[in-house]
Amino acid sequence: MQNDQSALEGPPRYAVAADLGGTNLRVALVNNSGRIIASSQTPTPAEVDPIQFSRRIGEFVSGFLSQNLPQANPIGFGLALAALVNSSDGRILESPNLRFLNDFDIRTLLSTQLQMPVVIENDANAAAIGEHWIGSSRGYASSICFTLGTGVGGGIIINNKLVRGIDGTAGEIGHICVEPNGFACGCGSWGCLEQYASATGIRKILAHSVENGEISADQANVEVEELYEMAKRGDEFVLRIFEGVGEHLGLAAAALVNALNPEAIVIGGGLANAWDLFIGAFESTLKKRTFKRPAERVKILRADLDDFAGVIGAASNIFSMKEASGL
Amino acid sequence: MQNDQSALEGPPRYAVAADLGGTNLRVALVNNSGRIIASSQTPTPAEVDPIQFSRRIGEFVSGFLSQNLPQANPIGFGLALAALVNSSDGRILESPNLRFLNDFDIRTLLSTQLQMPVVIENDANAAAIGEHWIGSSRGYASSICFTLGTGVGGGIIINNKLVRGIDGTAGEIGHICVEPNGFACGCGSWGCLEQYASATGIRKILAHSVENGEISADQANVEVEELYEMAKRGDEFVLRIFEGVGEHLGLAAAALVNALNPEAIVIGGGLANAWDLFIGAFESTLKKRTFKRPAERVKILRADLDDFAGVIGAASNIFSMKEASGL
Repeated sequence: MQNDQSALEGPPRYAVAADLGGTNLRVALVNNSGRIIASSQTPTPAEVDPIQFSRRIGEFVSGFLSQNLPQANPIGFGLALAALVNSSDGRILESPNLRFLNDFDIRTLLSTQLQMPVVIENDANAAAIGEHWIGSSRGYASSICFTLGTGVGGGIIINNKLVRGIDGTAGEIGHICVEPNGFACGCGSWGCLEQYASATGIRKILAHSVENGEISADQANVEVEELYEMAKRGDEFVLRIFEGVGEHLGLAAAALVNALNPEAIVIGGGLANAWDLFIGAFESTLKKRTFKRPAERVKILRADLDDFAGVIGAASNIFSMKEASGL
Repeated sequence: MQNDQSALEGPPRYAVAADLGGTNLRVALVNNSGRIIASSQTPTPAEVDPIQFSRRIGEFVSGFLSQNLPQANPIGFGLALAALVNSSDGRILESPNLRFLNDFDIRTLLSTQLQMPVVIENDANAAAIGEHWIGSSRGYASSICFTLGTGVGGGIIINNKLVRGIDGTAGEIGHICVEPNGFACGCGSWGCLEQYASATGIRKILAHSVENGEISADQANVEVEELYEMAKRGDEFVLRIFEGVGEHLGLAAAALVNALNPEAIVIGGGLANAWDLFIGAFESTLKKRTFKRPAERVKILRADLDDFAGVIGAASNIFSMKEASGL
């Protein structure tokens, strides 16, 4: 478990944690049992200067803390965001959505401003930690967590610990190639899972189908949520799209099941709302594409913590941070 | 390191270890510094009864020990073979080349016969352990080891430990899909790396090229070693085959570099003799298919231990076996 046992004894301790998305900043006060005591949300700051940007985040967190249980006295601030993060020094290596944060040491700035230790984490890694701490993969020593949202994020847990890799960039399983000659991806490769099993991927598939004359531009102009409804009404074209999500996800998961023989696969993120539409194709692809033993062993789980997985994982990092140096 | 530090102090200790292939059984006496004191080889027993088969192995090991340093008194026997092995109980789960060993408890039998503890290991995992112990990836905490032989084996090391997975079947990275509609594979899937980056894969590519009329049946009737020579003489068709090996290997490695952010990739096995013919395509594919940071970080290493990697890894297991229960 990410938090150690002693954290569960004695008086409750608190962490403040945030999940910084391209659209919203979600902040929560979390206790050492993983319970959310209070939470708040605000639009992601519009500043593109990294110092101003991180100052706005600090101000929102301070304001949130002074309004909610000011006596809670959190022991640290955990921040999750969509970026490659060097977990040892908290430096943001690459942030595709907030590029002005590239190579920026947001940790030191926030730590000075908030006067508390800060731990920075990739958002999908945080979600994996959260699910493992108190979510659907609790009690499983090894798991692979896919977060199907705007893109596809991931986190890998082995022996009850997140796999960070030598620079902290591990877990980028949304960029496993599932179509060697497929769509170009923002990462520089092409045919990545993210291009087939995310909201962005589905939009691209729709656009591609318009180009091919399979559907009209009008038909392609729908929200992903509307697609769920169309599929439920039996629309063959849309059903096939979600089957494709399951097949591609199954192919990427198969690579990891053969490589790592994990106990569980956790699937979360907004697109997991289409669970019934893709899970059949996912499971049958996974079974066909892996050795029998690891395929029979691995449990397929839907993520439990919804939009709060990242916040809870970021908080978990605070309770386990005594392992980290310099904090 | 797989062996603990204390193993390096005091008088030398010895393990006897073997690598059981489809053709040959290689046995060696190895000391706790990883040095091979003596070795011997014999054809793999022809018996298809698992009890008779393992008895022949035991007899060969006993004979080898009595001839070589009978005073060495090995503390255990490590056996590597091409099979999915349950590392906790030593049971062979699936052995594609020696199917009569499926579900067979060879460990108990050999342990009784040899009167010493026995540790069974997948051969490619053993090679990864060997390379990490005293070979090319020594000193790297995390590495991915590809063994390109008849098939493609693999072993993954994270935090200086082999990743075994929940049932001990991890490391099957030869079955990462690199051509979703590619050649059928013995594992039940199709388009696996093994079909494109092994001796078997190259034979299949040649056969396919005959079917397509690209080459004649005569031209396809060559040994892999002859292909190296043809490529060195500039044969375009053959050069393209080895480029394909590099590209497919690069694609599979990219999945693992994005997922695990390792320090090193080790490539060994017989086909590594064609190093110069595929490594360029491998490196350029890996670079194109991964995030910049982990791609820049990962070292590409040629395996050091040649045909002895498996034996040395199996011996390493004996020196670290005090961690294992029941021995």
